[in-house]
Amino acid sequence: MSVLVTGGGGFLGAPLLELLSASGEELHAVHKRPHPPQLAGVQWHRCDLLDAASVERLIAELVPARLVHLAWYVEHGKYWQAPENVAWVEATLRLLRLFIAAGGRRAVLAGTCAEYAWSRERYSETAPLVPATMYGVAKNATREVAERLAVDAGVELAWTRVFMPYGPAEPPGRLLASVIGALMAGREAPVTEGTQIRDFIYVDDLARAFAAILDSSLQGAVNVGTGEGTQIRALVECAAQALDRDDLVRWGAVPQREGEPAELVADVSRLAEEVGFSPAVGVREGVERTVAWWRERAR
Amino acid sequence: MSVLVTGGGGFLGAPLLELLSASGEELHAVHKRPHPPQLAGVQWHRCDLLDAASVERLIAELVPARLVHLAWYVEHGKYWQAPENVAWVEATLRLLRLFIAAGGRRAVLAGTCAEYAWSRERYSETAPLVPATMYGVAKNATREVAERLAVDAGVELAWTRVFMPYGPAEPPGRLLASVIGALMAGREAPVTEGTQIRDFIYVDDLARAFAAILDSSLQGAVNVGTGEGTQIRALVECAAQALDRDDLVRWGAVPQREGEPAELVADVSRLAEEVGFSPAVGVREGVERTVAWWRERAR
Repeated sequence: MSVLVTGGGGFLGAPLLELLSASGEELHAVHKRPHPPQLAGVQWHRCDLLDAASVERLIAELVPARLVHLAWYVEHGKYWQAPENVAWVEATLRLLRLFIAAGGRRAVLAGTCAEYAWSRERYSETAPLVPATMYGVAKNATREVAERLAVDAGVELAWTRVFMPYGPAEPPGRLLASVIGALMAGREAPVTEGTQIRDFIYVDDLARAFAAILDSSLQGAVNVGTGEGTQIRALVECAAQALDRDDLVRWGAVPQREGEPAELVADVSRLAEEVGFSPAVGVREGVERTVAWWRERAR
Repeated sequence: MSVLVTGGGGFLGAPLLELLSASGEELHAVHKRPHPPQLAGVQWHRCDLLDAASVERLIAELVPARLVHLAWYVEHGKYWQAPENVAWVEATLRLLRLFIAAGGRRAVLAGTCAEYAWSRERYSETAPLVPATMYGVAKNATREVAERLAVDAGVELAWTRVFMPYGPAEPPGRLLASVIGALMAGREAPVTEGTQIRDFIYVDDLARAFAAILDSSLQGAVNVGTGEGTQIRALVECAAQALDRDDLVRWGAVPQREGEPAELVADVSRLAEEVGFSPAVGVREGVERTVAWWRERAR
């Protein structure tokens, strides 16, 4: 059985491929860049998922039995509202229907906690789905069609509602990457007041969750988080303390994004009970590991 | 200002183009067949809407200000559940975002009463949206993304939830076309018991409604029907009486489609109040006109 992973060069894709490569399974990954990361056991394929002909060729060549689709438009600061999300709805549905038509058996697709109506503190998978952002609308609509297509075709599909990943190699501009970058350079780090509560999940835990979901028989939507809420302030403080630069954090210098929810924490019962996953890395340890990664990289 | 109509050669497209061609506006229509119908004032363009490059060329060439998108997968008996619906989600979103990116100002897209959760007798636009069919899921998901994209871009978008069209030139296999075809040939016409109540709208009325919606400033979802419920039995009886072949109708010879709702009637307040549309053709007259059309055609 072969597995195809899209977004394999990304923040989550890289640690996930590392985990999956240990299984000895035939492992294929898609990249857009000229030079994909070297990783033993991974066969890389250059493919633009927005281009129909490229995807048709890829699926016809590989005929993958399993699919993990992580790729999406993720340009920081823009992806919440960008019209580019629409092209990724199209690309995701096309990829999935070609995968199914070629005999694919199980797919795990990356969704988001932004599918929920942001109106409560903790979200189970049955919470109302009224996305406030274009990103959330696009992911949720993709899920609606993808789930129906998979059910009708008798193909297993798991849809992950991912909460707040953080860790090494975050895309530039994301909170922790930019705070650590500023503090390491001795610059001020402007942040919000940081009172928002989020379910932060360390990227290695997230990768383990995806690998476990892929190997499970879970179908439908599943929250992927830790079940623990942490103030954004606490995350930033961990970084500042690890770098001993509390003095450079400028609380309240950045306004909260309009419409942002006060609290966003996953009910992870389904993930725990049906997949048997539990997170291993707490916020303090995760931030310290992330700081260590950046320090290593700066040498 | 130019208008682009997709599905222009279809059951609804043809009478709509005839209406719109009277306005003197620059009018473009898409067809897939080698020989589109001749119609004064309509410029035909051959384009496969499922092919990205074709659509990109079309929009770049025409730069339409207004769009009426009717084309979809409509193979009778199959379209309710067919995976082909997924490709039409992709095609519709691609067409809309290219139209918007090229400066389009107003779009009217064909949706369906199958977007609603079939659980009541009469549906206002705010009724719950839990589609029972792949067709309904696909249309509803398309709407969710399309509406958000249009709102964010400042483009007007009206989404028509079409109830039960009937009339001349119905696609083969649809109820009235097949009953009339059988009775005219002196064959038996097997039908269900016909107790289901539907909101039947004569195709010329439907075309007038679309033209009126295009010329209005209405945005969002709007039901398009008559507001009147008619038993399917009554529709078939009108046809049998017009052809004087009641003897050939086999009630109950066809089972009802599984999951089909007992009653499906539009609340047309929005269409009446905001668009000023009201239907002109009742069921008996509409069926008689349809029979007359088939008789004319059989000469």
